[in-house]
Amino acid sequence: MKQVISVLVENQYGVLNKITGLFSRRGFNIETLSVGETDDKSVSRITMIVDSGNSVMEQVEKQLNKMVQVIKVRRLDQGELVGKELALFKVGITSKTRGEIKDLVEIMGARIADISASTVTVEISAAPEQVDLMLDMLRPYGIKEMARTGMAALQKGSKAL
Amino acid sequence: MKQVISVLVENQYGVLNKITGLFSRRGFNIETLSVGETDDKSVSRITMIVDSGNSVMEQVEKQLNKMVQVIKVRRLDQGELVGKELALFKVGITSKTRGEIKDLVEIMGARIADISASTVTVEISAAPEQVDLMLDMLRPYGIKEMARTGMAALQKGSKAL
Repeated sequence: MKQVISVLVENQYGVLNKITGLFSRRGFNIETLSVGETDDKSVSRITMIVDSGNSVMEQVEKQLNKMVQVIKVRRLDQGELVGKELALFKVGITSKTRGEIKDLVEIMGARIADISASTVTVEISAAPEQVDLMLDMLRPYGIKEMARTGMAALQKGSKAL
Repeated sequence: MKQVISVLVENQYGVLNKITGLFSRRGFNIETLSVGETDDKSVSRITMIVDSGNSVMEQVEKQLNKMVQVIKVRRLDQGELVGKELALFKVGITSKTRGEIKDLVEIMGARIADISASTVTVEISAAPEQVDLMLDMLRPYGIKEMARTGMAALQKGSKAL
């Protein structure tokens, strides 16, 4: 089962390594991870997607809570989160396909972030399923390279961690 | 000096932990990190921003290249990259400030991702400096919580890793 975990941590070196270590020692693959500062520069928020059972995740949650540098941990149910991901796709273009890609970008609410004579870099920020869909739709044009950030997530509504 | 490093790795458990370990053992703080799959599901791309000198980064680059699961490493100069970041900001709203926030969101090319009676969640995908600016402009309204993904980056133009 895919689980989304949001962790507020002190912004210190080594914290990210300790957290990823907790997962790797249990043989869990972290599917996506994103980490960035919050409005308080001494605090970072890590969002992870991990594929694991409920009971194992409860253990990991307890271990995370024991870490001195961890301020707060929360598993977010799919129904209660606003989750978005950013992706950049560098795709081949020709004069023939340029218009098609432009239309696709507009329909999907994406943007052109960069262009060269033979390629275009598309930027999309959306729910992960939409990013997957964009990938599938751009694939026929030839994806030269891509980068996706992993999901950033907050609870829906007015509640906060 | 802030450096952007892009690493293609095999999508296996433990790889992220090994990489973050390389940095933490040297006392480096990884400022932002994002990891997600590429169009080849067996390969993930990690993008990191690290604050360090050139010579130290060369060492780290060599160490990364020695790791079996690392397919490719590249430091991207600020001038040669397309770098974007996603952020979610949950901000307090009142009937008085709703219009102001709506205008700000439109001007900045952001979006409303969620709304409640007392809060609004703003989604922005932009260069990190623009995300910082959005944070500064939303701060007066009261930021309940935020999440940012860290930068995803590709080389400008048609070149690929």
